[in-house]
Amino acid sequence: MDFKSYLTQKKELIDDALKDLMPEPEGATGEFIRAMGYSLFAGGKRLRPILCMAGAEAVGGEGTDTLPFACALEMIHTYSLIHDDLPAMDNDDMRRGKPTCHKVFGEALAVLAGDGLLTEAFNIMSGTDLPRKISMERFQEVLTLIASAAGHRGMVGGQAVDIMMEGTDVDAIMVDFIHRHKTGALISASVTSGAIIGGGSIQEVEAITIYGNNLGLAFQISDDILDIEGDSREMGKQAGGDAQKRKNTYPSVHGMERSKKALTDLVHAAVGSLSQFGGSADPLREIGGYIIKRKR
Amino acid sequence: MDFKSYLTQKKELIDDALKDLMPEPEGATGEFIRAMGYSLFAGGKRLRPILCMAGAEAVGGEGTDTLPFACALEMIHTYSLIHDDLPAMDNDDMRRGKPTCHKVFGEALAVLAGDGLLTEAFNIMSGTDLPRKISMERFQEVLTLIASAAGHRGMVGGQAVDIMMEGTDVDAIMVDFIHRHKTGALISASVTSGAIIGGGSIQEVEAITIYGNNLGLAFQISDDILDIEGDSREMGKQAGGDAQKRKNTYPSVHGMERSKKALTDLVHAAVGSLSQFGGSADPLREIGGYIIKRKR
Repeated sequence: MDFKSYLTQKKELIDDALKDLMPEPEGATGEFIRAMGYSLFAGGKRLRPILCMAGAEAVGGEGTDTLPFACALEMIHTYSLIHDDLPAMDNDDMRRGKPTCHKVFGEALAVLAGDGLLTEAFNIMSGTDLPRKISMERFQEVLTLIASAAGHRGMVGGQAVDIMMEGTDVDAIMVDFIHRHKTGALISASVTSGAIIGGGSIQEVEAITIYGNNLGLAFQISDDILDIEGDSREMGKQAGGDAQKRKNTYPSVHGMERSKKALTDLVHAAVGSLSQFGGSADPLREIGGYIIKRKR
Repeated sequence: MDFKSYLTQKKELIDDALKDLMPEPEGATGEFIRAMGYSLFAGGKRLRPILCMAGAEAVGGEGTDTLPFACALEMIHTYSLIHDDLPAMDNDDMRRGKPTCHKVFGEALAVLAGDGLLTEAFNIMSGTDLPRKISMERFQEVLTLIASAAGHRGMVGGQAVDIMMEGTDVDAIMVDFIHRHKTGALISASVTSGAIIGGGSIQEVEAITIYGNNLGLAFQISDDILDIEGDSREMGKQAGGDAQKRKNTYPSVHGMERSKKALTDLVHAAVGSLSQFGGSADPLREIGGYIIKRKR
């Protein structure tokens, strides 16, 4: 398969769908809608929505059936970046080569833009015709899976522990907890929700979830490694930020060599869990390789 | 009817349900769960969940059927207060007679506590057995109604415009827009969602929505009036904050006398829309009177 054109094609589908979902910035709320759209269209890789579509395809479903959910996942991810970048949180001025949302629109609108994107994600998912296409049970399963992964049991909980532990030395168990929650949970939910929407069997959804759990942790480790070894220009943000903020990262706890080994081991475990699938899971396999090699 | 014991009884039901829904503050996220619970149990009036239950009862349904949604509405309301109180927003130190969330837990955890409550609200609503009790259509209608009222088309959009317009002089149309969005939308969605869950007919739900739209605006006007005439000790926060922040309020645009008249007119319009209902809508009628007389 031509993985590069697969990514490009999916990214276009997702960008078009996101544009359709966002209202025109007009009227009294115009500037605020612009703040929401600014971060949503600031050049993200669209990893989570692509995983959602690829998860559906792996089990023989239609990737496009997932689009409202794929877009909602990107909105949830984007809101979390806006809030993480706030002065009270990570205090980041640059993201993806552009000034962060609060730098452009001010802190108040940035807080609200994040709130708006999170709420709109649930609005979009709630209104789909998916219950008629699949079943009410699967619809509710997907909604609660994503809400659970995004909230205090997942992403937000992990982010809270990350912030609380800044500047203290944590052990291997704690850095695993933080990474699996703040990043892993939503990545895992992205690919699993795709597999559920795509009509996967219990065994298939289980295998995809194992893939997602391993890939999600691997992704955060690759982020940690990039923050030390990456090129600031290529990443669109300043490298070395984690050490400066005394963030607990895989390299800070395990050292660089063991972190790189953990990254490849996790990706191999992720890809290994896909053995029951044929070529339909090739995009998921390729995404594994991409995470080992990524530069931004 | 004994309205006071009606309120007390409903408040107890809601408080108990909220306690059941919140996890124990233990493990790595313990302090964060405490931050979420701190604001949720800081002595709110539970107006929105009571309206949701009363909306169901008005159309002949069971108030307790709405409990997961009633609790979710209170979580959404609480998250909005936490974010509104942040230094970057209204910068309020006291709320309901207690230090605000960010004063106790710091800004970062307060942002995340709000995010966690909003997300958990959707998690709770998504996981209910309501689709089996009523219908899939009504379930989705309630979810999108609440998400829409909470997001950029409603509460968050109104809050954004309120912030953007601070310190400028707005006209009557704009202060109406702000109040109907930042406060009215969620109050209206609370009572309407109750009526939908309670099995109301199209005509009944429409009447309840007119009630909610009028009551919601009336509630924000009563808030504006209280901020000028209220007793700081009784309210649990400093009176006069709106003028200090140069907020656009009903009294600042229309003067106090016309604001008081608008308040009673709106409550009368709200109660008037309930003419098709018998005694089952008495709590909704009483809530109208309560909003005219409230002291906090």
